[in-house]
Amino acid sequence: MVKISEFELIEKINRAFPNHDKNVIGIGDDAAVISIPDKKKELITTDTMINGVHFLSEKADFEKLGFKSMAVNISDIAAMGGYPLYALLTLGISDKINDSQIDGLLRGINNIRNEFPFELIGGDIVKSDVFFISITMIGEPFKNPIMRSGAKENDFIYVSGTIGDSGIGLAIEKEIIKYDILTPAFFLERHYKPSPRVDLIEYLTKNHSIHSCIDISDGLLQDLGHISEMSGIGFELEIEKIPISRDKIGSLVLSDERYFLEFGLSGGEDYELIFTSPEAVALPKAMPLVTQIGRMTGNSAVLRYKGKEISPKELKKGFTHF
Amino acid sequence: MVKISEFELIEKINRAFPNHDKNVIGIGDDAAVISIPDKKKELITTDTMINGVHFLSEKADFEKLGFKSMAVNISDIAAMGGYPLYALLTLGISDKINDSQIDGLLRGINNIRNEFPFELIGGDIVKSDVFFISITMIGEPFKNPIMRSGAKENDFIYVSGTIGDSGIGLAIEKEIIKYDILTPAFFLERHYKPSPRVDLIEYLTKNHSIHSCIDISDGLLQDLGHISEMSGIGFELEIEKIPISRDKIGSLVLSDERYFLEFGLSGGEDYELIFTSPEAVALPKAMPLVTQIGRMTGNSAVLRYKGKEISPKELKKGFTHF
Repeated sequence: MVKISEFELIEKINRAFPNHDKNVIGIGDDAAVISIPDKKKELITTDTMINGVHFLSEKADFEKLGFKSMAVNISDIAAMGGYPLYALLTLGISDKINDSQIDGLLRGINNIRNEFPFELIGGDIVKSDVFFISITMIGEPFKNPIMRSGAKENDFIYVSGTIGDSGIGLAIEKEIIKYDILTPAFFLERHYKPSPRVDLIEYLTKNHSIHSCIDISDGLLQDLGHISEMSGIGFELEIEKIPISRDKIGSLVLSDERYFLEFGLSGGEDYELIFTSPEAVALPKAMPLVTQIGRMTGNSAVLRYKGKEISPKELKKGFTHF
Repeated sequence: MVKISEFELIEKINRAFPNHDKNVIGIGDDAAVISIPDKKKELITTDTMINGVHFLSEKADFEKLGFKSMAVNISDIAAMGGYPLYALLTLGISDKINDSQIDGLLRGINNIRNEFPFELIGGDIVKSDVFFISITMIGEPFKNPIMRSGAKENDFIYVSGTIGDSGIGLAIEKEIIKYDILTPAFFLERHYKPSPRVDLIEYLTKNHSIHSCIDISDGLLQDLGHISEMSGIGFELEIEKIPISRDKIGSLVLSDERYFLEFGLSGGEDYELIFTSPEAVALPKAMPLVTQIGRMTGNSAVLRYKGKEISPKELKKGFTHF
C-alpha cells in the first residue's frame, strides 16, 4: 500500500526530477511547455508495462523496472535515428504497491537519466486495480528520421550487439532453460537492463547511409519482417551469422547451437537495432559490435542455416526441430 | 472479450484515423514524426481513465467514454491557451471488453475530432487485467502559454459556462441527488460530454490580457486554489455569483440554493475555465457565458456568501451546513 497521497507523490517526483532546461515548463500546470528552437522534426513514442503481463510486482526489482520502462522508449527513439529529450510518466497505483517500490522505480528512472539525459516534464498519477507504468517519450533525430520503410534492394542487413540474450535471461528466470549457462547473471542483466543504442545510431547516421532501422522488441525475425513488409522488399538471412553470446553461454552451445540460435531468431526484448545500409559499415572500437546477417533482396523471406534453405513455414515449428 | 488481434486492432485504429497532415508520419513505425514549422512553443499533457475508478465498463457508453477521454486532454491544452494538434492513444485491453465497445470508443474519438481536429499519430495496445484509456495530447498556444502562476493582485476572476453541472449529473447517475431535477438529461450530458473551451481561449488571448488560467477538473474552489497558490496571492470569492444552471435545475433551487452552490464550489469535472484578467471581459454573443466571481487579492482565500464571510475551515464541513 502506497501511504503517501497522490499530491505528495507528485511532489516527490517533482523533487526527484528537477528541470535543468530553462526553456521548459514541466510538472505543475495543465500541460507542459517545451520549446523547439530551430528544429523541424520531432519523434514521439509511448510504451506501457503492466503488472501481470510485462512483469510481476511481487518478484520485480522496481529499480530495474524504472530503468527498463524508460529504456524501451529510448530504444524506440534510437530506432528512428534520434535521442531522447522529454518524458511523461503515468503511474497506475494499486493497493499492492508500497512506497519503497515507488522509490525504487524513481531511482531506476534517475539512473537511466545519467546515461541518457532527458527531462521529465509531466505525467499522471491515477488509482488503478492493476499497477502499470506508461511512458511517453519525445526526442529528435540526429539527422533525418530513419523509417522502417526505407530498405532498398541489395542493402546489407546489420544487427547491433548480441541477439537472444534477453530471451535466454527470461528463460533462466522462468527456469525453463534447457542447459546450465556459464554466466546466467549476464543474461538476466541483459533482460532487465537493455542498452538503448543512441550512441551507435548517432555514429551511423553521421558516417553512413542508413536506409532503414527498427529495434528488436518482438524478436529479430518478426522485426526484420516489419522492415521487409514496410519497404515492400524481401530478404535473405543467414541464421548462423546471428551474433549469439557464445562465450557467455559456454561450451554447451557447440553441441546444441540451434537451441540458442532460436532465441536469437525469436527471443525478443533485446532492444538492439536492426538496420540496413548499402555500405560496408565499419565502426570505431568504442562502439558496440555490429554484425552483417544478410541482404535485402527478392520478394520473400529466405532463411538459410549453413547454406541450407529453411522455409518460414518449417521454421514456425521451431528451429530446434531441424 | 475482444476477438480481433492486437495487430488487427492497430490496423483498425489506423484506418479509422488516417493522417491528413502530410508533414506527419503517424502510426506504424517505432515512433511518430511531427514537424513544427516556425513554431517555438509546444504544449503536452497526458490523462488516463481507468475502469472501476473513472467509469464502470458494464454501465459506460463507450462512445461517450471515447469522447470524454479526449475532451479532458483538449481541455488541459485549452487551459494553457492552446489548441490540440496530435494525440497518442494507449489502450489497456482486458477480457471484459468486447469488440463493439472498442468500436464505440473509436466512434467517440472520431466525433470529437469533428469539433476539434487533431491527428492520432500513435499509441500502444497492451493486455491488462483492468481496462484503461491513456491519452497524450500535443498542442500549441494561440499566442503565449497561459500559466496557473500568472495571476496578479486585483485581477478579476472569471469562469466560463455554468459550474457544478457535471457533479449534479454524476449525483443523478448515482441516484444520490436530493431533489427532482427539471432537466436531468442536461446534467448527464454535461457530465459525459464536456465542452473544451478552445474557441473561448482563442478569443480571450487575442482580445484581452489573460494573466492565468486553469480548467475545472477537481472543483472550482480547489482549482482556483491552484492558481492562488502558484501565483503566491490570495483571492476573494463571492459564492452566490457562481453561475449554476438555475433554469435547468428548476424552482427547487430557490428553496435550497446552497445545496446546488456546493456542486458549483466542489463538484469537479466541469472542464470549464477559470481565468484571471485585469480587464472587464466582454464577449461576442457566439461565445460561451463568462461570469466574474471574485478578485485576486490579499494572502489568503476569503469566501463570502451574500456578504457574509465563511472560513475555508467552516466550508470543509460542507456549504449546506451554514
